[in-house]
Amino acid sequence: MTSTIPAHDAIEVILAKRDKGELSDSQIDWVIRNYTEGVVADEQMSALAMAILLNGMNRREIARWTKAMIETGERMSFESLSRRTADKHSTGGVGDKITLPLAPLVAACGVAVPQLSGRGLGHTGGTLDKLESIPGWRAALSNDEMMRQLESVGAVICAAGAGLAPADKKLYALRDVTGTVEAIPLIASSIMSKKIAEGTGSLVLDVKVGTGAFMKSLDDARELARTMVDLGTDAGVHTVALLTDMSTPLGLTAGNALEVRESVEVLAGGGPPDVVELTLALAREMLLGAGVDDVDPADVLADGRAMDVWNAMIRAQDGDPGAPLPVAAETHVVAAPADGVLTRLDAMDVGLAAWRLGAGRTRQGETLALGAGIEWHARPGDTVTAGAPLFTLHFDDADRLPRALESLEGGYDIASSGTAFSPSPLLIDRIA
Amino acid sequence: MTSTIPAHDAIEVILAKRDKGELSDSQIDWVIRNYTEGVVADEQMSALAMAILLNGMNRREIARWTKAMIETGERMSFESLSRRTADKHSTGGVGDKITLPLAPLVAACGVAVPQLSGRGLGHTGGTLDKLESIPGWRAALSNDEMMRQLESVGAVICAAGAGLAPADKKLYALRDVTGTVEAIPLIASSIMSKKIAEGTGSLVLDVKVGTGAFMKSLDDARELARTMVDLGTDAGVHTVALLTDMSTPLGLTAGNALEVRESVEVLAGGGPPDVVELTLALAREMLLGAGVDDVDPADVLADGRAMDVWNAMIRAQDGDPGAPLPVAAETHVVAAPADGVLTRLDAMDVGLAAWRLGAGRTRQGETLALGAGIEWHARPGDTVTAGAPLFTLHFDDADRLPRALESLEGGYDIASSGTAFSPSPLLIDRIA
Repeated sequence: MTSTIPAHDAIEVILAKRDKGELSDSQIDWVIRNYTEGVVADEQMSALAMAILLNGMNRREIARWTKAMIETGERMSFESLSRRTADKHSTGGVGDKITLPLAPLVAACGVAVPQLSGRGLGHTGGTLDKLESIPGWRAALSNDEMMRQLESVGAVICAAGAGLAPADKKLYALRDVTGTVEAIPLIASSIMSKKIAEGTGSLVLDVKVGTGAFMKSLDDARELARTMVDLGTDAGVHTVALLTDMSTPLGLTAGNALEVRESVEVLAGGGPPDVVELTLALAREMLLGAGVDDVDPADVLADGRAMDVWNAMIRAQDGDPGAPLPVAAETHVVAAPADGVLTRLDAMDVGLAAWRLGAGRTRQGETLALGAGIEWHARPGDTVTAGAPLFTLHFDDADRLPRALESLEGGYDIASSGTAFSPSPLLIDRIA
Repeated sequence: MTSTIPAHDAIEVILAKRDKGELSDSQIDWVIRNYTEGVVADEQMSALAMAILLNGMNRREIARWTKAMIETGERMSFESLSRRTADKHSTGGVGDKITLPLAPLVAACGVAVPQLSGRGLGHTGGTLDKLESIPGWRAALSNDEMMRQLESVGAVICAAGAGLAPADKKLYALRDVTGTVEAIPLIASSIMSKKIAEGTGSLVLDVKVGTGAFMKSLDDARELARTMVDLGTDAGVHTVALLTDMSTPLGLTAGNALEVRESVEVLAGGGPPDVVELTLALAREMLLGAGVDDVDPADVLADGRAMDVWNAMIRAQDGDPGAPLPVAAETHVVAAPADGVLTRLDAMDVGLAAWRLGAGRTRQGETLALGAGIEWHARPGDTVTAGAPLFTLHFDDADRLPRALESLEGGYDIASSGTAFSPSPLLIDRIA
């Protein structure tokens, strides 16, 4: 094996990118493999990551980088399943619980949904953390269990195994401590290496843009979306991206158990209109990607079939879908300070408040307060009344309240009644 | 101590420079001190070094970075000496043995010369390695020994103690393996932190430019020189830089014992004209910097006073200046292939040949072949005769010969006799 790969050294690869050159296929293969094996040191990879962040990579380089990361680990395949598969990835946002209603909904429409998810770090929550507020539910499945559940239930949301793209796992941890996270080539290859290795047949990307998202500018979000769609397409995965707004948080809640409750409302045919809109839009894209065009997911949501799959999916992973969800020990209400129209609700400020209340982690491995989080009782465009509840904060530890309130302070604007307000669209663009 | 310094974190400092911002004084102090103490990890510092290499630092940042590195270690002072001090630093070149005749010459003119030197790595030799070819001579002196020798002899060339700017030592080793050596702010602060910490009253910098130098372009060399002169001046050290040519190697030899022999020829009133020219030019700058303007170093070289100081300086460090120098086991002569005029002799190719013959190191700590190296029997502008010796290669290990010959192959040009030839000047510019 070693003898068939041309030899390089770490400094040569770093200098090539530092001096604004293109990395060759064999340089990329060499550096990824040898970093994974510990031959290329962390301090060398971080210098290379910074050079990539500042000098970029072209489409060929990003595709090869992704392929090289995939090749450090195992590849899964869903080809033995009787159904087509579709997966979805969100770049993360505040109140983004969409995976929870979406996976059972798409499965109920006849397409299998394997959702290998992660945990949250920072102000955007993790899907696994949310589901873990359901008593008994477990995130860790063997590959066999996952395949059986996909065949029987049609949807599975579980922890990504350590075997997929181990290079990415190591590199992600390094980027996290070296100021090299915000490099579009590295973000795109990190996400797509796992999705391609997972073996899904089609993929829909929900790329968030706005204050509460990783990508603050539309240009950056568009470039990330385009890069990921190219990567998926080049790897033979039918890939579409939706650019969606994350200047306002999704729905009416942020927090683990709070978001499960809201998701169940959507599956029951209710729930906040924006959550329903985005769930249906993503479902339609996933069905289209899997070649299914004879089912309207709105019907499947309305008639309870999606809820049936949800209940089966939770039970298959030892959860009790009927059990009461965790509730925080205390609540605190923030009243609207004036009559008027809510014209702004900042996703980052709300996300930070939920995080500070105990819904999110500061360090990997930290235990979450599953009942903690925040509800907002109005969305931009809604009329508010002085003294009526605007936010309800949920928390176990009262020490957490003051800093959460602080982050909400500048997080909203109320204009006098009658002020013209045109909401920004949730769905911004579609990139295929 | 800790409580008086504002707290920062490594990622914040990396992001500031990554995003093309200026680092504050307290960010610089924090990151240098905490890197030295191991709080900031190697992979964080290498990402920062790459960001500095690509995004630069301004004069204030470089000055503060240098000051912060100095403050991680001890500071020496020569104020108790009865004489003024002057130091010289060369950025390194092929055949650059100038320190050897220069230090005793300047001392013989009445100015004390403390030369804390390093060892060579790569194609340019180290001053200590050259002197170690003198039987008995030792590089390691205590601070007390150094001060006594400066008082009694006037000149000392010895190993820099580990106590000066330990941050620089750690950072230099990191830059060496992470492709972040070629950053002018980091090169300048590395050199100047040691020179300022050493406590010299005045400093002359010999900044080399050309194929055999670290700086290949005149613009880069000028920027480095200007940066270092500013740093010295800001720190209260009288600092002048000469930009000198390193497209052609200095003198007629490269190799440890070979260069000592050539240096002794200069001290005896002979030696290659370019070595004499540069030695005198640097000596005049050092004397000027120390406020001495009533001595002509050419006289002191001619009448043997510089040689007397050399002998005393070598003896003070247990060397025998009269003992035979090491001679390589074998020699090989390369004859001129044609009659004509030598129009080019490439410093890098000659340096590489000497290195491959065993005069230089590949790894830190490697033992050198002290007699190994190369002599060239003509300099650009000289007439050569077909069949007459052009190079003599000296080596202990015949296996080293083929690759040394290879590096010489494209290293020179001979034009037909009578071709007009105008030599490039040795002294290119002076920056004060």
